[in-house]
Amino acid sequence: MKDFTWSIKNKTNNSKARTGIISTPHGEIKTPAFIFCATKAALKSFTTKDAKENNTQIILSNTYHLMLQPGSELIAKHGGLHKFIGWNGPMLTDSGGFQIFSLGHGSVADEIKGRKIKSNIKKTLLNINEEGALFKSYIDGSTHILSPEKSIQVQRNLGADFILVFDECTPYNVDKAYTSESMHRSHRWSLRSINAFNSKIIYKPSYGSAGKQELYAIIQGGIYKDLREESIQFNTKEIDTFGIAIGGSLGSNKEEMKDIVHFTSSKLGTARPIHLLGIGDPNDIWDFVADGIDTFDCVSPTRIARHGSALVKGKQGKINLKNVKYKNNLNPIDKECKCYTCKNFTLAYLYHLFSAQELLGLQLLTNHNIFFMNNLMKEIRNSINNNNFNNAKKNWLNS
Amino acid sequence: MKDFTWSIKNKTNNSKARTGIISTPHGEIKTPAFIFCATKAALKSFTTKDAKENNTQIILSNTYHLMLQPGSELIAKHGGLHKFIGWNGPMLTDSGGFQIFSLGHGSVADEIKGRKIKSNIKKTLLNINEEGALFKSYIDGSTHILSPEKSIQVQRNLGADFILVFDECTPYNVDKAYTSESMHRSHRWSLRSINAFNSKIIYKPSYGSAGKQELYAIIQGGIYKDLREESIQFNTKEIDTFGIAIGGSLGSNKEEMKDIVHFTSSKLGTARPIHLLGIGDPNDIWDFVADGIDTFDCVSPTRIARHGSALVKGKQGKINLKNVKYKNNLNPIDKECKCYTCKNFTLAYLYHLFSAQELLGLQLLTNHNIFFMNNLMKEIRNSINNNNFNNAKKNWLNS
Repeated sequence: MKDFTWSIKNKTNNSKARTGIISTPHGEIKTPAFIFCATKAALKSFTTKDAKENNTQIILSNTYHLMLQPGSELIAKHGGLHKFIGWNGPMLTDSGGFQIFSLGHGSVADEIKGRKIKSNIKKTLLNINEEGALFKSYIDGSTHILSPEKSIQVQRNLGADFILVFDECTPYNVDKAYTSESMHRSHRWSLRSINAFNSKIIYKPSYGSAGKQELYAIIQGGIYKDLREESIQFNTKEIDTFGIAIGGSLGSNKEEMKDIVHFTSSKLGTARPIHLLGIGDPNDIWDFVADGIDTFDCVSPTRIARHGSALVKGKQGKINLKNVKYKNNLNPIDKECKCYTCKNFTLAYLYHLFSAQELLGLQLLTNHNIFFMNNLMKEIRNSINNNNFNNAKKNWLNS
Repeated sequence: MKDFTWSIKNKTNNSKARTGIISTPHGEIKTPAFIFCATKAALKSFTTKDAKENNTQIILSNTYHLMLQPGSELIAKHGGLHKFIGWNGPMLTDSGGFQIFSLGHGSVADEIKGRKIKSNIKKTLLNINEEGALFKSYIDGSTHILSPEKSIQVQRNLGADFILVFDECTPYNVDKAYTSESMHRSHRWSLRSINAFNSKIIYKPSYGSAGKQELYAIIQGGIYKDLREESIQFNTKEIDTFGIAIGGSLGSNKEEMKDIVHFTSSKLGTARPIHLLGIGDPNDIWDFVADGIDTFDCVSPTRIARHGSALVKGKQGKINLKNVKYKNNLNPIDKECKCYTCKNFTLAYLYHLFSAQELLGLQLLTNHNIFFMNNLMKEIRNSINNNNFNNAKKNWLNS
């Protein structure tokens, strides 16, 4: 029996939405699924035990952060990330490319989603060339090189089930020539990542790495469809990885983003699970599931919780618990929600916690938002399996 | 059957240590027991669910903080503190006196324990007279009066199982004349507190208060044994409350504190459960249990967790997880500890969480320290029940 398998369970008649199962040595992921960010080997203000109790299937950590602090060798000595962070389910690590270039170019996350650039972001990227990226540590200013080989070595040490090829994530504000040049380099880096992945020299299971891992490639090309087409050809014809991720800039607004994702995913077929990098808005997720996306990740559900926002159904999407209108409200966030927070606490209590700056408020909202996202994905899966996807989507948005 | 009962289960031969059961409408408390502080209606960075899972028997909240934010009427509308904070076990509220005078005189907490006064504490106490205390809110500067009647009214609204009479907690740096004057006023305030407690006018169950409550009186007298003696006489002969707490200044050093607690508790007998206010050091707890103390409270176990310290057995008492010597240590805090943190995480991981400023570090250490304190109290109870108290104490301190 294979350690990793991907199988499609049900398809819909009038969209590309599909359910499937990604099987890993650490258990199955029912797709479509959401991947929560444990960026620095920790879900922010939340235990992995509670993540599990709230139906979380898979979490991810970041190569860039962990290679700087605490260092991947220490994690390897623990037997890998799973043991380090007390999570026995499936995990993914990114390649580190996104963070380096994000910190280098300004905020790529903002760029990808078409938001304004913050001018005060400290640039730590020193140089990109064929070899890789030279950057300064945001912790102590020391210089480091991240190359395809180094990224794979670090990800081998970390031992997540799924690891990503090393890429440059181009921001929106670069021109087509740069996007093309960068894409071709990222393709060459993919080949080097795959070689490194297959090299027994780089893979040192003596470190105690969890061992069995599979690769995701990344489709580049920014907002240029001819480049996307070329990257799709490369990623599906010239290399063969377990999964495929859609990366790079997705445009400056939601329409552009939806157009690019729709164009790209429509050409990816069913042979591999498809991951969309960095997207977490529930309403967008309904759209992208319809395009055939199987997994999503984003810091948003846990980040907005720490800023006092609870996810809710409907076009509104979220409510801000710091709003004084909730001060005396004896209802929960959502009367129908079955999460610990909604079953036990009122809006007035949550308002109080944020007013009194009690850290418990962050935990309780994180709990709700994690449960909410997992419940969203479950409703999506159920609707696909019951061939009721479009109705379920309409009901959700009109809740 | 009575709603509240106190019964002693086992006594020791060579000390005043005893086990007992305090029965409340929200369940039993096996004594000796530790009471954790949910000061502003929240355990800091910890859910009441996890407190329960870590064997917590009873928690307390603070009248002073809650009357200012969010206001006791809002909590009454929830049906009391138990429902507001999602805790179905026994609860206690203090009378508010300690905080007002602590913020007024400087840091009473430091004074009681003989630590140096911080000069930059903002004084918010405006005036104390026979009626009560006039103070400024630390939140918005508004002025408030807290009197025995007001304190009991607020505590009725909060609806904890046990409530305290209103008192002035005198600091160490006041003279005997002031301590005596203050003690006599606190005694008069006790009588007014009891009258208020028995008054149907002040008790408004229509607010939705949890209803059934019992009172603890407080023994004053500072470091002066003749005053302590007088307060003991008053509290045991002239009034009759369910429980008795030992309050006021306990001296400027541990020896003085132990002498005063020993003197006071030795005269309190077995008729009522005895609570020692504000003491949480495990090694002190062994000593004070030997003096016949039944319950303790202190912010210390959860506060030091947030500053990176884990409680450990032995005279050392705690270790600082921020110490770089733990950076690569693959052991847990305590190999024999059965808490979630020790069963799942290494010192290196906890060091990483504090280095990376991950809030999860606060939660995981709070988890350990709460489990630790509850386990300490259980070991103490078991040793008393097995008539092995002195040996168990010796073993603990030499661990």
